[in-house]
Amino acid sequence: MKNEKSAEVIKKLEDLGRKMISEINAQSTPTFTTTLRSKGNILYDESVGYLRLGDKKEERKFINVGQARKFMQTVAIAAKCKKFLTENAHTSIRGLYYQLKFSLGEDLDEELFSEQSESNPLVEDLEVALNVKREDLNLNTDRKGVVAGPLVIKDKFGGEEDIIDCTKQGRSGWMIPSDVDNGMEFLEIDADYVLVVEKDAMWQRLNEDKFWKKENCILITPKGQASRGCRRLIRKLANKRLPIYCFTDCDAWGWYIYWAIKTGSMNLAYLGSDIATPEAKFVGVTMKDIEDYDFLEQLTIKAKEVDLKRAEEMLSYEWIKNYKDWVDELKTVLKTKKKLEQDALQGPRLSFVGEYLREKISKKKFLA
Amino acid sequence: MKNEKSAEVIKKLEDLGRKMISEINAQSTPTFTTTLRSKGNILYDESVGYLRLGDKKEERKFINVGQARKFMQTVAIAAKCKKFLTENAHTSIRGLYYQLKFSLGEDLDEELFSEQSESNPLVEDLEVALNVKREDLNLNTDRKGVVAGPLVIKDKFGGEEDIIDCTKQGRSGWMIPSDVDNGMEFLEIDADYVLVVEKDAMWQRLNEDKFWKKENCILITPKGQASRGCRRLIRKLANKRLPIYCFTDCDAWGWYIYWAIKTGSMNLAYLGSDIATPEAKFVGVTMKDIEDYDFLEQLTIKAKEVDLKRAEEMLSYEWIKNYKDWVDELKTVLKTKKKLEQDALQGPRLSFVGEYLREKISKKKFLA
Repeated sequence: MKNEKSAEVIKKLEDLGRKMISEINAQSTPTFTTTLRSKGNILYDESVGYLRLGDKKEERKFINVGQARKFMQTVAIAAKCKKFLTENAHTSIRGLYYQLKFSLGEDLDEELFSEQSESNPLVEDLEVALNVKREDLNLNTDRKGVVAGPLVIKDKFGGEEDIIDCTKQGRSGWMIPSDVDNGMEFLEIDADYVLVVEKDAMWQRLNEDKFWKKENCILITPKGQASRGCRRLIRKLANKRLPIYCFTDCDAWGWYIYWAIKTGSMNLAYLGSDIATPEAKFVGVTMKDIEDYDFLEQLTIKAKEVDLKRAEEMLSYEWIKNYKDWVDELKTVLKTKKKLEQDALQGPRLSFVGEYLREKISKKKFLA
Repeated sequence: MKNEKSAEVIKKLEDLGRKMISEINAQSTPTFTTTLRSKGNILYDESVGYLRLGDKKEERKFINVGQARKFMQTVAIAAKCKKFLTENAHTSIRGLYYQLKFSLGEDLDEELFSEQSESNPLVEDLEVALNVKREDLNLNTDRKGVVAGPLVIKDKFGGEEDIIDCTKQGRSGWMIPSDVDNGMEFLEIDADYVLVVEKDAMWQRLNEDKFWKKENCILITPKGQASRGCRRLIRKLANKRLPIYCFTDCDAWGWYIYWAIKTGSMNLAYLGSDIATPEAKFVGVTMKDIEDYDFLEQLTIKAKEVDLKRAEEMLSYEWIKNYKDWVDELKTVLKTKKKLEQDALQGPRLSFVGEYLREKISKKKFLA
């Protein structure tokens, strides 16, 4: 039961192979071209509001002593991915590594791959060269994050079809998978907005209070930095014109979780528009909240040296330094040397978190 | 909607308070008695097959300069937990910390709690003194791990009731919650055994192949070391007379995941029989497998110094050194300086993992 996307990706892989064969037939060296993913080719594109790769290309030739090994490895990975797609079976990049180690290890004098660190960047090369995500190559990535709320998903996987109703997932919620595209579709979305909550403990608190039911929202926790699958899910929900609101700790780390969802991040800049959600807004916690809610002052914590260093770094990011509110927030951290966790909002009463969110969301007290 | 257990725990907390009041009324100092959790009071009980606490007690008196602070803190925590139980609301130990910081911080000259590290061990004191788990005190713990297979759960939580059918959770499975006791019951279990798979990537592979359907088993991944909730779930499934088989990497770290499920671990020895599953058996991967399956040799990895050190440590554990097979396995690691990941079983073909497990389980090739 292969889907359309699989057929399209198989064709891309075959085209890559055919191009190389025709190069050989024409007595020229086979080449592999991809876009550079190094820092010098990552740019913040203000017109779209996210990080993406520039135009610099990298060409790898088979007949080049310095490139031959990498070239062979790339072709071997492409062949394996085609096999996985044809068999309609998924594995991890670790599983891919062992497949390569197994089938190529025997007949060669030299191991084609001695470490997984050799195969990982080549998977990224292939993603960029073919303009697909590794999830489209049947490679699973680490999954993390949970969702609950008025969202019904049809999940075709492993030869079966399940309907996942995210209002009926009890205390646990539905775990966000690695691949939220292939074989997965939204059957119903009847929500007013999406709330992304940094910490799982806070998600559980809001889930117990049925915040998603009372406020008719979709409640997501990435459990810290969002995984690829979680960022992609948020992007897809934003595509359905749902507002995305993020709720994190009031410190540079929490805020960066928001920014990574909004503009993407350096190491995933090559996925650009697939995972960035520039429309996302920030609901809290902010240093400004400490002024607005008197009792919060006593619940602040002293910022550590690393917290301040991280805040300084963020001030230098060009996609942040144009937002006056954010510059003020970061400068307040540096001045007061304080931070405030989202958990602190449970200080006066466990249900206060919900009251806080309701007030800020209804009054549209957001940062960009 | 409080359950019976909540009422019982509230009574235990009230009894603790009443005891102290009667001590005050009798003009003696209020005391709090708990069982010592330090290393000297942790023993491996061969007759039951798990780690548990011994009989050494610790008594804390209010009228003792060195103990007054801790005493007050313990009482404050007990009072908060009673409040959470009465309100039928859960929070994390971080949420508890902020509640304490908020309500006690104002009127005292001194902060009652300055760091969360002060409140954590006191929660454990209370668990042991009252013979309850922190989950019974409405304190959530980190949740981790996923389950799929022929298991139907009734989940009463947050004022609602959901039926979770673990055969219908698609590519994701059901996330194992922090508390698998209160408000949660098994409606149906129609499985022949439980398979616990160390890594999530491997769990996804087996889930895609519908291993749990073909083999009629419950498929669990703890995602590395098992959380409290995951260990407790495994214990509860073993109570239903289901055999428990564990499948981990072939190295000291993987094997210790198995041993922690089987005999418990030092830091959770105070939970003893609640989370240990001495009936558990080990299906693989073993150093012996490398002899039995020729191709595995080429997929082994060099063990690092830390791997060997850990193997040596395990050889010294009294609950391991009586098992000849395990001593042989650990000695083989030290001799060959090799290890083998469970992912390596995907080398020849992605579906090989399932073939391997079927053969070993059907032939009952287990280690104790």
